[in-house]
Amino acid sequence: MLILGIDPGINITGYALIEKSRHSNVLKLREGGVIRGKGKNSLPERIQEIYVNLAEIIEQWKPDAMSLEEVYSHYERPKTAIIMGHVRGVICLAAAQNHIPVFSYSATTVKKTLTGNGRASKMQMQRAIQLEFHLPNVPEPPDLADALAIAMCHGFHAEAV
Amino acid sequence: MLILGIDPGINITGYALIEKSRHSNVLKLREGGVIRGKGKNSLPERIQEIYVNLAEIIEQWKPDAMSLEEVYSHYERPKTAIIMGHVRGVICLAAAQNHIPVFSYSATTVKKTLTGNGRASKMQMQRAIQLEFHLPNVPEPPDLADALAIAMCHGFHAEAV
Repeated sequence: MLILGIDPGINITGYALIEKSRHSNVLKLREGGVIRGKGKNSLPERIQEIYVNLAEIIEQWKPDAMSLEEVYSHYERPKTAIIMGHVRGVICLAAAQNHIPVFSYSATTVKKTLTGNGRASKMQMQRAIQLEFHLPNVPEPPDLADALAIAMCHGFHAEAV
Repeated sequence: MLILGIDPGINITGYALIEKSRHSNVLKLREGGVIRGKGKNSLPERIQEIYVNLAEIIEQWKPDAMSLEEVYSHYERPKTAIIMGHVRGVICLAAAQNHIPVFSYSATTVKKTLTGNGRASKMQMQRAIQLEFHLPNVPEPPDLADALAIAMCHGFHAEAV
């Protein structure tokens, strides 16, 4: 099963593709990266750009599931959160258009699943990802790390198929 | 110039098409309605449904401009606002894909433009819309009224072309 984890953002959207094999709980990292919006474009143009890039990734990899962080109720910066919502909207659209089921996990669940601690620090999370995939360095930028984390979370929760 | 005003919502998205003629400031109502999401569908399915319906409206009417309420900083219900952001995102995507410029106005600007009062009541707004388009009744539901209001606002601000 191929899982596409995404961390939506209007400036940088992180994505990670991980494979969960049928016969073990081992996750394999297949691809990870970021989609960067072009700074001077209008909001609709940037959203379109992210959508087009994401549609290409889906077309190329044909993931079986998508994993996103849940929308929650309290944000420090509501306006930024609503703009993130715009990006999350076109991500959900791309999933629906390609018949990819979308799974959502709260930040606490993601942290608890990866480290055993629902209040794990950013550093502990990066370290958990690094260990799982035997990476030479901690994953950077944070958007990629967050995409890896949400993909891993679904990897551990999903039934292998 | 044909203006498409939209009031995005995951349950009900209102839309209104109004025409601004070249030689006068008179606005004509061409079409107005609501797109209703199906209650039991998942968020991605509902977003896709709104996107598909909107794409059909754009295909049929080929508006010259789209008008939306600005994203602001304070919402009573942040989670609802972020879900609205998802819908606004696919609306912006549809605009970009069809090369329709998107214009945004604050709630205060919309109220001030329609009634002369930036703090106009809902009733005053409905009355202003009713008068402008010679409607037999006040526009309902509120989602349609809001779509009419944001379309009218751009109608009064835009240069006639």
